[in-house]
Amino acid sequence: MTLLVVGSVALDSVETPFGKADDVLGGSATFFSASASHLCGVQLVGVIGSDYPVEKLEPLAKRGVDLTGLERAEGRSFRWRGRYRHDLNVAETLETHLGVFSNFRPKIPPAFRRAEYVFLGNIDPRLQLDVLTQIERPKLVACDTMNFWIESRRPELLELLGRVDLITLNEGEARQLTEKYNLLKAARWIMSRGPKLVIVKKGEHGAFMFSEREIFFAPAYPLEDVFDPTGAGDSFAGGFMGYLARHDDLSERGLRRAVVYGSAMGSFAVEKFSIERLLEVGAEDVEARVREFHRLVAFEQEMRA
Amino acid sequence: MTLLVVGSVALDSVETPFGKADDVLGGSATFFSASASHLCGVQLVGVIGSDYPVEKLEPLAKRGVDLTGLERAEGRSFRWRGRYRHDLNVAETLETHLGVFSNFRPKIPPAFRRAEYVFLGNIDPRLQLDVLTQIERPKLVACDTMNFWIESRRPELLELLGRVDLITLNEGEARQLTEKYNLLKAARWIMSRGPKLVIVKKGEHGAFMFSEREIFFAPAYPLEDVFDPTGAGDSFAGGFMGYLARHDDLSERGLRRAVVYGSAMGSFAVEKFSIERLLEVGAEDVEARVREFHRLVAFEQEMRA
Repeated sequence: MTLLVVGSVALDSVETPFGKADDVLGGSATFFSASASHLCGVQLVGVIGSDYPVEKLEPLAKRGVDLTGLERAEGRSFRWRGRYRHDLNVAETLETHLGVFSNFRPKIPPAFRRAEYVFLGNIDPRLQLDVLTQIERPKLVACDTMNFWIESRRPELLELLGRVDLITLNEGEARQLTEKYNLLKAARWIMSRGPKLVIVKKGEHGAFMFSEREIFFAPAYPLEDVFDPTGAGDSFAGGFMGYLARHDDLSERGLRRAVVYGSAMGSFAVEKFSIERLLEVGAEDVEARVREFHRLVAFEQEMRA
Repeated sequence: MTLLVVGSVALDSVETPFGKADDVLGGSATFFSASASHLCGVQLVGVIGSDYPVEKLEPLAKRGVDLTGLERAEGRSFRWRGRYRHDLNVAETLETHLGVFSNFRPKIPPAFRRAEYVFLGNIDPRLQLDVLTQIERPKLVACDTMNFWIESRRPELLELLGRVDLITLNEGEARQLTEKYNLLKAARWIMSRGPKLVIVKKGEHGAFMFSEREIFFAPAYPLEDVFDPTGAGDSFAGGFMGYLARHDDLSERGLRRAVVYGSAMGSFAVEKFSIERLLEVGAEDVEARVREFHRLVAFEQEMRA
């Protein structure tokens, strides 16, 4: 199956307690693609400025990420500068320069319009809605969002909820969107507005997947060194959507395994800066980590005599 | 097997966003016993003042909690008054009156000295050490602690670590004790000082059990209404130790199941004030919740063709 992602392609400068990186590959579509490319081909739609080091995207192209939909515009690329202290759950944004991203109007190339799996990365809900008018009937559309859109584009975001199958958002965003502190109630509120599936990402505390009748939880992998949490959520989404697109299995069984693949890819993403670690790991590493996730939570349900 | 608990027996007054309760049964030994009594008999050692409504402990006695070791002293009972806002992870202490608890010197009755499983609730590490001199060789000794002792009795606490098999502590306490932010590193630090097992409780984010070669994680049960989180940690410990004492199985398999029983009992504790809910539920409720925990985290490890 084909997997389409629409989102940001940025240059990040990041400081963590463990080091510093300047102008490294970042953005939601970048992390998503690097992650999903372990599982299936990816069609990427985004925009970069004339200053973007395009050659650095070659490893992605080699891994099966189709960059036909990556627009090159005159001007500066989207740049984000941030810092993490010891509590790696909290990113402190030092600078954001939208550059060409501020005029981004996603154009889905004809060859991408029949994608079966679609991920609308964290961009203006008006653009996310516009993407939906450009594509044919996908099997599953998922979207991400953030506090900024919840505040400034609430009506459009609610409209979007009526048109997607799944939304991923973090704990704070779920509470902000729904005005419900309890995550179960927050998830119910969201599902009543459209999505059949809600994934609440809790960073180092794991992720919940809610559906009408089921709740699934996957912990975050307990790493001894979380190097840089940037992109963990988009890498999670990439692993999740990549698994679904690869296996085309939307049963509860498939969805649960997809969450675990998402968690595995998220756990790799944070081991190095940018998409470095995502480009290093191979299929056997991914499978090994999935087995470790199983070992982490496995217990025997029934008592033996 | 016999299970001994030494800890506080208090009267709690609690305010939550959902209601208020005054002078209800509280204290670590009380929650622990109410929880563990679902799985095995419990020997309780603690102290109450002359004002304690002893008749309220009768339900515990009826459930097999031996109160022979509950000393009655002249004076006022230990009272705690606290409040929770919407973030139920954070208790705000409004008042603490130690009363007779400030002169508590645990005396283990002769009949209790051969207990095979021992839980040293959160009291002065000097008293926890003293209890160990009064008992014969248990199969497993576990202790709990808190920020106050980590600050004020560090040498004694470190001495205690050398003499227990397991410690339960919350995330913040683990970090404070070890001066390590990463929980895996914190657990390693603690294990290097004695305990073979470390359980890090993360409240609504679940619990980790660390041992030399294994990490096990159990989420908190996603409740729609967390009514009052007081006692969740001690109820967890009661379910955990109760399971171990009942099945006398210290294999990885038994320990993992014990953590799940602990999580199940903790999830009941927070559904009502005090030990109310713990006294209501029956064996079938406990088993049903354990099955729900299994459903919450279960995924198929291997792909089907």
